[in-house]
Amino acid sequence: MRVIHSVRNLHSWRRKQESLDGPIGFVPTMGALHDGHLSLIHRARKRCRIVVVSVFVNPLQFGPAEDLGRYPRSFHADRRLCREAGVDLLFAPPPEEFYPSNFQTIVRVSHLTQRWEGEIRPTHFQGVTTVVTKLFCLVRPDLVYFGQKDYQQYLVVNQLIHDLNWDLRLIRCPTVRESDGLAVSSRNRYLSAHQRVQAGLLSKALREGGNTMRSGVRNVRAIQSRMKKILGSNPDVRLEYLAICDSKNLEPLTQVGGTVVILGAVRVGNIRLIDNLLVRCPRSSG
Amino acid sequence: MRVIHSVRNLHSWRRKQESLDGPIGFVPTMGALHDGHLSLIHRARKRCRIVVVSVFVNPLQFGPAEDLGRYPRSFHADRRLCREAGVDLLFAPPPEEFYPSNFQTIVRVSHLTQRWEGEIRPTHFQGVTTVVTKLFCLVRPDLVYFGQKDYQQYLVVNQLIHDLNWDLRLIRCPTVRESDGLAVSSRNRYLSAHQRVQAGLLSKALREGGNTMRSGVRNVRAIQSRMKKILGSNPDVRLEYLAICDSKNLEPLTQVGGTVVILGAVRVGNIRLIDNLLVRCPRSSG
Repeated sequence: MRVIHSVRNLHSWRRKQESLDGPIGFVPTMGALHDGHLSLIHRARKRCRIVVVSVFVNPLQFGPAEDLGRYPRSFHADRRLCREAGVDLLFAPPPEEFYPSNFQTIVRVSHLTQRWEGEIRPTHFQGVTTVVTKLFCLVRPDLVYFGQKDYQQYLVVNQLIHDLNWDLRLIRCPTVRESDGLAVSSRNRYLSAHQRVQAGLLSKALREGGNTMRSGVRNVRAIQSRMKKILGSNPDVRLEYLAICDSKNLEPLTQVGGTVVILGAVRVGNIRLIDNLLVRCPRSSG
Repeated sequence: MRVIHSVRNLHSWRRKQESLDGPIGFVPTMGALHDGHLSLIHRARKRCRIVVVSVFVNPLQFGPAEDLGRYPRSFHADRRLCREAGVDLLFAPPPEEFYPSNFQTIVRVSHLTQRWEGEIRPTHFQGVTTVVTKLFCLVRPDLVYFGQKDYQQYLVVNQLIHDLNWDLRLIRCPTVRESDGLAVSSRNRYLSAHQRVQAGLLSKALREGGNTMRSGVRNVRAIQSRMKKILGSNPDVRLEYLAICDSKNLEPLTQVGGTVVILGAVRVGNIRLIDNLLVRCPRSSG
């Protein structure tokens, strides 16, 4: 496995790939790799000639009050995991080269970023779309792998790819979960044993919502109230949102139908957790 | 010469170029091709294996009160000129495919776009940087040719390329001028015979500024007052700005030194004209 830190070296590496056949797969990450990331890498490894992973804790996607400073960094472990997973190239640029002092370009997707995560974290998605655009310019992949766990991010990146006319395919990979359903996340390591149990309630609420829909209940308030009962049973879980939305544009629904997504965000102590569930609702009987 | 209108066909054309050697040169235009554009195309033709020209009147870079509707369109003449100049591929997407109804991505360069053209045309440069990003994603050129005539645009695109880590070289080509010095522009065709004479004063004023600097005058106000005398002699020429700036960041200077740029914008009747001159000032004697 090759490790590249500088933009210039990545450019010359990429130019050498031009004449070779077969797709380049790309998994962008912020490091602190876990089973969720590894599932993306394995998926890329199965299909692509070349697998590129980037490890970059992107300052642009953290708000001023967020956890950039204490976001977990574990480059040596990440490198080992990538090597073991058969990654061809690990790209890990230093922040001061990636965003030099006169850096002044922002890539922004508008409508899709207004609600939910975008409302709570107003500059988050423009940080994501800017770094993703830079990484696409550098790696020029044919296939890109994102997890469903950050569903809104997946939709935003999908919009970005279409709007900017990138010639690449975005692959959405299923959320990897712990045995109790908790979605695997780099921030889970901050949960105390007690909080860890509470954190499991979010995915439990989502499953309850999914089951309720599949049983034929169509009224969103009724579905939400069943989900909230699960989360409300615990005073240490603070609900941020629990939204039932059109799975394409994330507009909130009042009646479910077709494929919907349930988006959830909670705080357990100081730890923010998000999760989601795609549900194919039964056809209306009327 | 091949002509492609759709994004999908451009993607598949581009994929076929991967295995071939030699640079792809790209000249993005809004059509209404004139000698300025042709000089860019000739320059690309000399150096590149493949020369791509795009013709697209980009609605995003026009303000609501600007001349999008009556901007000159002459596709048949443009196609003929491209063919005669040895262009390999002419890309002319229809606006409704290039910006579909749910389009929502904007690429913005901040500091460099605040002053001068950016102040008078607040959404102009984000229109330029968005369309240029899309075109780069599609064409993936090795060399890109822009005219010096739109000097601020050239600097903004240069910043965009560096910030987004595009692996390509931006070539700045000299402004093509009429015999009296007027910079060639698609909008010149709107000038009446009388206005045409007045329009020549802008480049005359710039030359006066350059000569004044080269003669050793360093005080910007003194230089500006000499230039304004030329423009002020005519009541039908309305000055928008005449700025003497650092040639890298376009900050206005009070004393000249090193390489500076004089940026000028005037209105002759309803026609807006811009021009500029790069001047290498003599070293300070003190």
